[in-house]
Amino acid sequence: MSRDILETFPNPKPDRDYVIEHTAPEFTSVCPRTGQPDFATIVLTYVPDQLCLELKSLKLYYQSFRNMGIFYEDVINRMLDDFVAVVQPRWMEVRGEFNTRGGISSVVTAEYRADEEDDE
Amino acid sequence: MSRDILETFPNPKPDRDYVIEHTAPEFTSVCPRTGQPDFATIVLTYVPDQLCLELKSLKLYYQSFRNMGIFYEDVINRMLDDFVAVVQPRWMEVRGEFNTRGGISSVVTAEYRADEEDDE
Amino acid sequence: MSRDILETFPNPKPDRDYVIEHTAPEFTSVCPRTGQPDFATIVLTYVPDQLCLELKSLKLYYQSFRNMGIFYEDVINRMLDDFVAVVQPRWMEVRGEFNTRGGISSVVTAEYRADEEDDE
Amino acid sequence: MSRDILETFPNPKPDRDYVIEHTAPEFTSVCPRTGQPDFATIVLTYVPDQLCLELKSLKLYYQSFRNMGIFYEDVINRMLDDFVAVVQPRWMEVRGEFNTRGGISSVVTAEYRADEEDDE
Amino acid sequence: MSRDILETFPNPKPDRDYVIEHTAPEFTSVCPRTGQPDFATIVLTYVPDQLCLELKSLKLYYQSFRNMGIFYEDVINRMLDDFVAVVQPRWMEVRGEFNTRGGISSVVTAEYRADEEDDE
Amino acid sequence: MSRDILETFPNPKPDRDYVIEHTAPEFTSVCPRTGQPDFATIVLTYVPDQLCLELKSLKLYYQSFRNMGIFYEDVINRMLDDFVAVVQPRWMEVRGEFNTRGGISSVVTAEYRADEEDDE
Amino acid sequence: MSRDILETFPNPKPDRDYVIEHTAPEFTSVCPRTGQPDFATIVLTYVPDQLCLELKSLKLYYQSFRNMGIFYEDVINRMLDDFVAVVQPRWMEVRGEFNTRGGISSVVTAEYRADEEDDE
Amino acid sequence: MSRDILETFPNPKPDRDYVIEHTAPEFTSVCPRTGQPDFATIVLTYVPDQLCLELKSLKLYYQSFRNMGIFYEDVINRMLDDFVAVVQPRWMEVRGEFNTRGGISSVVTAEYRADEEDDE
Amino acid sequence: MSRDILETFPNPKPDRDYVIEHTAPEFTSVCPRTGQPDFATIVLTYVPDQLCLELKSLKLYYQSFRNMGIFYEDVINRMLDDFVAVVQPRWMEVRGEFNTRGGISSVVTAEYRADEEDDE
Amino acid sequence: MSRDILETFPNPKPDRDYVIEHTAPEFTSVCPRTGQPDFATIVLTYVPDQLCLELKSLKLYYQSFRNMGIFYEDVINRMLDDFVAVVQPRWMEVRGEFNTRGGISSVVTAEYRADEEDDE
Repeated sequence: MSRDILETFPNPKPDRDYVIEHTAPEFTSVCPRTGQPDFATIVLTYVPDQLCLELKSLKLYYQSFRNMGIFYEDVINRMLDDFVAVVQPRWMEVRGEFNTRGGISSVVTAEYRADEEDDE
Repeated sequence: MSRDILETFPNPKPDRDYVIEHTAPEFTSVCPRTGQPDFATIVLTYVPDQLCLELKSLKLYYQSFRNMGIFYEDVINRMLDDFVAVVQPRWMEVRGEFNTRGGISSVVTAEYRADEEDDE
Repeated sequence: MSRDILETFPNPKPDRDYVIEHTAPEFTSVCPRTGQPDFATIVLTYVPDQLCLELKSLKLYYQSFRNMGIFYEDVINRMLDDFVAVVQPRWMEVRGEFNTRGGISSVVTAEYRADEEDDE
Repeated sequence: MSRDILETFPNPKPDRDYVIEHTAPEFTSVCPRTGQPDFATIVLTYVPDQLCLELKSLKLYYQSFRNMGIFYEDVINRMLDDFVAVVQPRWMEVRGEFNTRGGISSVVTAEYRADEEDDE
Repeated sequence: MSRDILETFPNPKPDRDYVIEHTAPEFTSVCPRTGQPDFATIVLTYVPDQLCLELKSLKLYYQSFRNMGIFYEDVINRMLDDFVAVVQPRWMEVRGEFNTRGGISSVVTAEYRADEEDDE
Repeated sequence: MSRDILETFPNPKPDRDYVIEHTAPEFTSVCPRTGQPDFATIVLTYVPDQLCLELKSLKLYYQSFRNMGIFYEDVINRMLDDFVAVVQPRWMEVRGEFNTRGGISSVVTAEYRADEEDDE
Repeated sequence: MSRDILETFPNPKPDRDYVIEHTAPEFTSVCPRTGQPDFATIVLTYVPDQLCLELKSLKLYYQSFRNMGIFYEDVINRMLDDFVAVVQPRWMEVRGEFNTRGGISSVVTAEYRADEEDDE
Repeated sequence: MSRDILETFPNPKPDRDYVIEHTAPEFTSVCPRTGQPDFATIVLTYVPDQLCLELKSLKLYYQSFRNMGIFYEDVINRMLDDFVAVVQPRWMEVRGEFNTRGGISSVVTAEYRADEEDDE
Repeated sequence: MSRDILETFPNPKPDRDYVIEHTAPEFTSVCPRTGQPDFATIVLTYVPDQLCLELKSLKLYYQSFRNMGIFYEDVINRMLDDFVAVVQPRWMEVRGEFNTRGGISSVVTAEYRADEEDDE
Repeated sequence: MSRDILETFPNPKPDRDYVIEHTAPEFTSVCPRTGQPDFATIVLTYVPDQLCLELKSLKLYYQSFRNMGIFYEDVINRMLDDFVAVVQPRWMEVRGEFNTRGGISSVVTAEYRADEEDDE
């Protein structure tokens, strides 16, 4: 499973809320309906708790979608689920900016808050 | 009716509030007063509830305005009514950025909130 | 009087608050002190109530300033007074972005809220 | 025939070689294979001889392609033939910059020189 | 006559060929057909011989077109004639970049060479 | 003293809160430590009360710093003090965007609120 | 072989030299040394003789490199060989603009002229 | 220790809250894992209390990282700790915008508030 | 005399023709007619022969114009004369891009070729 | 010696003249006069003969300048000498675009042609 690719390292400053953002303009997957490749920029932003996401493993995680058939909405929600499960951040957002298809470009954005989840 | 062109698919993550944005820079209709073509970029943004808007049907819906005589304000309000009726989103906004006519460019923006409607 | 040039049409969706913005980059008037022409972009933004501003009459209204001697601050405040009197909007803003004179460019912005006025 | 839409007026300075360029970013036609609309910016550049192209008739000429099924290469070559026949310029170029289709954008450029034709 | 507005001063370095360029983005005249204002950026470039064009008189010369009804092609060719008559340059070019009208923007460019004229 | 250069005129609409912004990209002073010239863009924004700042006097005021040795932080705080003393605005902000020195560019921003001062 | 994917159609204007340019910003292949994906924009420009390149087949041709291990220089030279073999153009250029790797971005450009080949 | 490089001078206006921002696009350090150089723009923003940061010492402080092996998250958190210890500001933020590595660019942002610390 | 400020160092590669370009966006002088400051970007480009221009002395040379009353055309021609006299280059060009005055911006460009001079 | 870092591989298409360009925006060295770091973008462009430059070795070669004291003109001429000695190209150009120092940015460009050298 692609989630297993992700690695972490200890947050060097867990007593401070601070923000990390990784922007990856070379994401590509495959449209499950047409078999055509999709292209996107993925922007991951988060406030770490005890763990930070290791950058090289993030690159390999994104590459694991290269030949996977998956819709835009699934890409972003699955990524958020995977990142939250592995990093357990205080806050996180994943945004995918997908290239034009049929004259229409799309952006999908999903967000996670640790305290909201705790309330449930 | 053009609203019938729109198709939906089940929201893959209905338990999470997230945002989908579709930007279509190739919209064209006809000015009912002068008979001249109008051109616009239409930006649709929404938080899905149980349904997502299917992208190819959205393209065909926009194309159904190609030879229709309709004012800017009508374009945007009719689109919002159509999208809300078909997708029943938690929140939605439609913005039309219309090209310069007589040295003046125009932007029309309309918004829908499910909870506001519920209050009525 | 230039206010009489402005024409309106019935708002096609008066039960919804929505925003209309008209941007006119070809405004010109005359400096009353130096007699030199001034140039500006005028941005009019409003939430209509029962009436919308007709676009061609707006163009003619702006052109009526072409040979008028008037200061920046007067241009914007007079426009806001004229537009509010004719359109009776729920909210309105007029912004003038004036070209560089003596190495300094200027922006003047004035705003109207119907409910504030009602309070008085 | 769409060529008949074009009108001319006498060149006010026929004894001087000078250059006129008209850029039209709102061109649209229809793909004959897919039935989908195409969008382009058309740039017409020429050195007039005895005649200049009238601007309003040029706008109507471009609009006559709105619902015509025609390939990119045909659009540009037909336009050049039509403009040369009506304006009889000393030199002329037509360039069409077509929007992305299937992830690929296209530019087609064709040129005419009166003296080359005279040599034949 | 507007040509009389132009003033000159002696070229401080007549034994060297060098280039002077003046760009004026605030030019406006009136369309003789529709009575609507036209707007343009005028770019004047020249190699001076014995005279240079005085900048303030150039500004006043451009302003003399403010309420004149005149076509694009006439604006540029008349300007070139006026500037050449007053400045007698070694080389000169006048370019007018006119704002969009009916969805089409236009550029007109005319050039003068002293030695070409001498050959005639 | 440079403050005496500043002139005012009566606010034409004192019963309305509106915003005036003047942007001056040609500010220059001298670094008191190195004697080297500093360059900045100064942005002055304010809500007038009974007085507006006269534009030509503002230009001369900025020029009075041309050969003055003064640090960035002093420039902005002194300007705000001077403008507030002369214009007595409802609200005011002065921002200086200073060019790169030693590979580092700097922005200094100071703000004034009439009601805050009244509270003291 | 990927060359077989390419299809052509008859040039609609073979008696005129004109230029066709296709820009594809979504090209991706694999680095044969590291196994990492490479990303590029491919710009194909040519003067057709009897044949034009069909656009959809060009898209599929580019996609055939998606999981191929190949160096930059090979990508561009192989493409030029394939396109020339299938289209037999009068002139052709292929340019690949490859994304940054190790802090260095690369552009490779190769050109073909029919008459040069004829000389050999 | 690099913190000792930093110098301060008395805040010329300690009774006013105002904002100072220093942007340094020439930061470079070394990745401790790969030994490869990293490059970043560092943006330091703060509200001074009694002390301001001296600009030349800031430049030397940044240069002291040139051959240091250190991760992104450590760079930013260590800088914030150093700046807060030396300047004792009312508020401060440090943001590092790191160049692309493996197709992914990163931004790390950390913030300090004097009153929050006082509450602890 | 300001020319004396300029210093040189031996060209490290006199047997190769190569190009050096220095761009200085912080040039300022004074208009001799109005007493108002002028601002420009000065671009110096040359092919060195036996000498190169020392960069710090170039900065001081530009600063020597700060309070000098001088016209645009004189600035550029005097600079070219000074640089040629001191550096004796194989080729040199000086270009001044002057900020907008009265709505008109200006560029003055002068060029020197060693071999042309030798011919005289 | 840093030249020894450079590695090559056989040109896959030696019978065709084509162009390879590598752009490295992360170059840094040290000013021998001030000890301050310099930053530049290095653009290497060449037509290969029998050899191509290996990209990873190019990165390491650039890094070998990191703590070297060297002037702009020397950087570019030494690089060109090193690249020509190792790659023996048909044509090559090295351009360094150096960041602003003392308000002046610099570009140094040197070129090599195999046939010119052969003539000597």
